[in-house]
Amino acid sequence: MAKLLTDFSRLCIHTITTKPWSLEECLSNYRKAGVPAVTVWRQWLEPQGLEASARMLQDSGLRVTSLCRGGFFPAVSEDGRNHALDDNRRAIAEAHAIGAPLIVLVCGAVPGMPLSEARKQIAEGIAAVLPEARAAGVKLSIEALHPMFSDARSAVNSLTDANDMAAELDDDHVGVTVDVYHVWWDSRLEAEIRRAGRRILSFHVCDWRTPTRDLLNDRGLMGEGCIDIRGIRSWVEKAGFTGDIEVEIFSDAWWATDQHAFVEKIKAAYLAHC
Amino acid sequence: MAKLLTDFSRLCIHTITTKPWSLEECLSNYRKAGVPAVTVWRQWLEPQGLEASARMLQDSGLRVTSLCRGGFFPAVSEDGRNHALDDNRRAIAEAHAIGAPLIVLVCGAVPGMPLSEARKQIAEGIAAVLPEARAAGVKLSIEALHPMFSDARSAVNSLTDANDMAAELDDDHVGVTVDVYHVWWDSRLEAEIRRAGRRILSFHVCDWRTPTRDLLNDRGLMGEGCIDIRGIRSWVEKAGFTGDIEVEIFSDAWWATDQHAFVEKIKAAYLAHC
Repeated sequence: MAKLLTDFSRLCIHTITTKPWSLEECLSNYRKAGVPAVTVWRQWLEPQGLEASARMLQDSGLRVTSLCRGGFFPAVSEDGRNHALDDNRRAIAEAHAIGAPLIVLVCGAVPGMPLSEARKQIAEGIAAVLPEARAAGVKLSIEALHPMFSDARSAVNSLTDANDMAAELDDDHVGVTVDVYHVWWDSRLEAEIRRAGRRILSFHVCDWRTPTRDLLNDRGLMGEGCIDIRGIRSWVEKAGFTGDIEVEIFSDAWWATDQHAFVEKIKAAYLAHC
Repeated sequence: MAKLLTDFSRLCIHTITTKPWSLEECLSNYRKAGVPAVTVWRQWLEPQGLEASARMLQDSGLRVTSLCRGGFFPAVSEDGRNHALDDNRRAIAEAHAIGAPLIVLVCGAVPGMPLSEARKQIAEGIAAVLPEARAAGVKLSIEALHPMFSDARSAVNSLTDANDMAAELDDDHVGVTVDVYHVWWDSRLEAEIRRAGRRILSFHVCDWRTPTRDLLNDRGLMGEGCIDIRGIRSWVEKAGFTGDIEVEIFSDAWWATDQHAFVEKIKAAYLAHC
């Protein structure tokens, strides 16, 4: 079992977790709460632009864990695929500008496109932008998404799929993200985490509520659900991962509450359940 | 690719697909519509009792494809597990009485119980009731459920899990059910269907809607979603399956419509998309 967490040195919060807050509010409030790291969702860069965002992040003193999200490579037309490549190149430039060492890839899927074809287009897409990523010193992390998102969000539906793709691309700038919400159900999870080993670039936590009222925006705070988060952390750490523990919660219910109080609840849940 | 379906000789409808109808209405209306087979959900036996239901089914001339559902084996207490075994023994007696050659198992899960423990309890539960199943000439079919049901409905989340369990139990009265809704996303599906081979006891169809508005009751009519149903049918038939093609649609939207018209839409969708 993993060693208990006794401080917040590895705690990272995703800006989308506190969706009502602007980037400025996230940074200021996380820092006041003693949260040392942030993962920035790209929408949070838009209002003030990239340059101002980068300055804001640097001034905050917070560590930038990653940029969310690149990906969405598959498309029916070549135009669509080229558009996706351009967007991923922009994401790489953004990550570089804000000092994010990696981009999390939500790989994409197109309803009705065979998943095997989507997976092929994803691997080709990653390969196509890899030179830019390498030049920028930005890693690309393939996130396996829960199979309930296989229709329109990702054809990479298990850590097996992500590992297969990372192994195929076999590049030190490509790895995988383990998000407990997406992979906790998998009977092969421990073995696939072992197989991923040093390719694990990031680790996301939240919880699975029973009942889950919405496919997208009803994730639970750690401890509110049935995921053995600490058990999965012990596996990723045994595999060599020592990085941040990133709290990524999409929740209409939590977004409707006071976000300062929510951050305090996140901190308590982090110590109690991660 | 599978041979096109040109008649309804293999069409089976689950009573729950036309939820507003009683057993009597299901049987009478399916027969009038030229649907030759039915899978009976246990709730449909209750109003008139087992004996009257059995007579009704026999008189209808419809083929009983299976009884839904047994399972739900895991429980925190021994009392709970024994209660589940009793319920499964009752299901076996019911299946025998109505001439259903098999029971579909929704295996069960308990929020917070490790899935590995739940899987162990499921295998033990099946093994415990297997003598009664064999004596009754009723097969037990392990249905892999979609991973979005791993918290409270089934710790058997992929055809890999179901195949592993069936192989472990290794009995000619234990097999697996392939439901396209639950397994379509799996990159290993074709290989696991091949592995299942003659163990495939039943085949369920419906479709995955984009967006899916509810985890439980928003399944689509075949053709309304992104599942390559015909492709999956070609794999199960290549594996040796020649049985009924069972339409199992949980849908608040469809249940709110005229059920006679819905049965006609099912027939058209069956020919066009299965």
